[in-house]
Amino acid sequence: MHEARLARLLQLLQQASLDGLAVIAGPNLLYLSGVSFHLMERPVVALFLRDAEPALVLPAFEQSKGEASPIPFRLFPYEEDEDSRASAFRAAAVHVGLAERRLGVEPLRMRFLEFGLLQQAEPKAVLVGAESVVTELRLTKDEVELAAMRRAVEVAEQALQLALPQIRQGMTERELAGELTLQMLRAGSDSELPFPPIVASGPNSALPHHVPGDRPLQAGDLLILDWGATVAGYISDLTRTFFLPPLDPELERIHQLVLLANAAGRAAVHPGASCASVDQAARAVITAQGYGPEFRHRTGHGIGMEAHEPPYIRDDNAQLLQPGMTFTIEPGVYLTGRGGVRIEDNVLVTPDGCECLSSLPRELQDVGS
Amino acid sequence: MHEARLARLLQLLQQASLDGLAVIAGPNLLYLSGVSFHLMERPVVALFLRDAEPALVLPAFEQSKGEASPIPFRLFPYEEDEDSRASAFRAAAVHVGLAERRLGVEPLRMRFLEFGLLQQAEPKAVLVGAESVVTELRLTKDEVELAAMRRAVEVAEQALQLALPQIRQGMTERELAGELTLQMLRAGSDSELPFPPIVASGPNSALPHHVPGDRPLQAGDLLILDWGATVAGYISDLTRTFFLPPLDPELERIHQLVLLANAAGRAAVHPGASCASVDQAARAVITAQGYGPEFRHRTGHGIGMEAHEPPYIRDDNAQLLQPGMTFTIEPGVYLTGRGGVRIEDNVLVTPDGCECLSSLPRELQDVGS
Repeated sequence: MHEARLARLLQLLQQASLDGLAVIAGPNLLYLSGVSFHLMERPVVALFLRDAEPALVLPAFEQSKGEASPIPFRLFPYEEDEDSRASAFRAAAVHVGLAERRLGVEPLRMRFLEFGLLQQAEPKAVLVGAESVVTELRLTKDEVELAAMRRAVEVAEQALQLALPQIRQGMTERELAGELTLQMLRAGSDSELPFPPIVASGPNSALPHHVPGDRPLQAGDLLILDWGATVAGYISDLTRTFFLPPLDPELERIHQLVLLANAAGRAAVHPGASCASVDQAARAVITAQGYGPEFRHRTGHGIGMEAHEPPYIRDDNAQLLQPGMTFTIEPGVYLTGRGGVRIEDNVLVTPDGCECLSSLPRELQDVGS
Repeated sequence: MHEARLARLLQLLQQASLDGLAVIAGPNLLYLSGVSFHLMERPVVALFLRDAEPALVLPAFEQSKGEASPIPFRLFPYEEDEDSRASAFRAAAVHVGLAERRLGVEPLRMRFLEFGLLQQAEPKAVLVGAESVVTELRLTKDEVELAAMRRAVEVAEQALQLALPQIRQGMTERELAGELTLQMLRAGSDSELPFPPIVASGPNSALPHHVPGDRPLQAGDLLILDWGATVAGYISDLTRTFFLPPLDPELERIHQLVLLANAAGRAAVHPGASCASVDQAARAVITAQGYGPEFRHRTGHGIGMEAHEPPYIRDDNAQLLQPGMTFTIEPGVYLTGRGGVRIEDNVLVTPDGCECLSSLPRELQDVGS
């Protein structure tokens, strides 16, 4: 499996006219090498060149992890001092022949630290953002990946069903976030969740990325829950909106609208459709009712090893959908100071259309009576 | 509070001969602005210049978060397309007057993405790693921060005491990690743990950063638990080592040794002592018994908003300890293929010595009988 992934990487590098890719600790390294490293102040960098044995620079105390990789890395371990670290980077650069090479880097991951160490190791290497390679690499999921994602959706859905009966007026957002987390772990999520659950109540529900705080749930609140589980390193990412009566009729209307937009978005998913067309299908429903400006984000984003990855379902993304792509459909309408609604599902592009991986009811549900 | 922190930042910038600092989504931005943004593919960048109103570039849908900051940011929101984003970065660069300025960046955080956007916004800005500024900024903790950290230690200790009786032979590392996480949330941890608990059993305990897997706990195992809680954004980070009998006498001996090294490290902590001297005090105990090469990492690292931050307790770090610094003391000995021991406490440098924030017993405890 890892050999096939590496072969595909080399092909993508060729298409992008790159001589190689530098990959730091994180999901791309796990995907390619089968080994998980945490991102920390001690850098881990793999160098995959088209015409050299792959190299891995890593802290000496992690050496046995590098040896356990199915990829036959040449290891360049370093000790705790900066000289040792710089020497390891230089030796790796010489080993793969970095001079005069165009080396791609991960634009959303490579840090100033690793960038500086690579440039120092070989000033004649040309480091460029390898957006296209990184985007393509994990863009369509194989059966092993999909099995994990299906299970991550199941775990998240089961957790919600166990958490819902605990909701009561006066409970804080933070307490509810803790309850949801606990239920996900109990249901079988890996201990590293894709993101801490978002619990946003009342006016806070108008903030798409609100951090749960000490606000107690109150009568008249909309309540957004945005949560997901991790299974075997793959994630789910769901959102449902609830309410505590009595609900302002306009807030009820925007829920109906978002429900229709979610359905329209899912219906637009099929191979060959553009990401833009899916965004537009969902957005048109909301815009037609005059709430266009209040749908303040794109319709969705890819999911897999990460909670945000390509493809991005935006109205300026001409990328065409292919079978095996997995992403969210999550339209929302946010009325500042009053409340917001978002309904998010996880979908898979199939050879003849779309499969929705998530199955929870989407209707507005009373959790305060 | 945030005004005082900002004033201190400007002072640190002056000392470092920098005109300003660029801060991306993460702990430094939260510390300075009171607002928490998740790191994602949509960049958030604050620009703090010594002689200009602070600027914040952020996605338009997060604008109300920027407005809620106690720092009077000039906001530069951008829409979902790349042109809008580039314009917002350019406008912010003009607003703070970036041309010809030396702008510090966070070396362990700034990504190729933000780096590129800033360079594109103002090619005449000089971007340099601001290691010293970022290191100093949060290096000593105030009473508000310490109260959160004390509570984070309490929560972690309480969680362990509730998880310990659940341990049994045959339980997998992953199950135990889930149990520990669940108990931390129940005990009052924020939903975002500082790191997923490490549960490393048998030969896996010889890997300092092992990821919990499906290995069941077995007779003869050493068992390392390395876990921590988050309270109000501040973390704890503890390790204790247990065993399932019968235990190889050499593994028992290395536990005794690590226990002594931990005590020696803590005893060496006082204002004016160097980080190196603390590392050496712990290391000398282990080296004297011939296990020096098996103590494969530094003695500790700073903790606060992050699980790894300055000061680093390494034998090449001449930095002197000051009251208010908080860090781990965590010597370990690892026998590849057989097992390892680590004992980690959290300490605070006080005006006249050291206070150990953690209080769990350190003796080797039988969890398998």
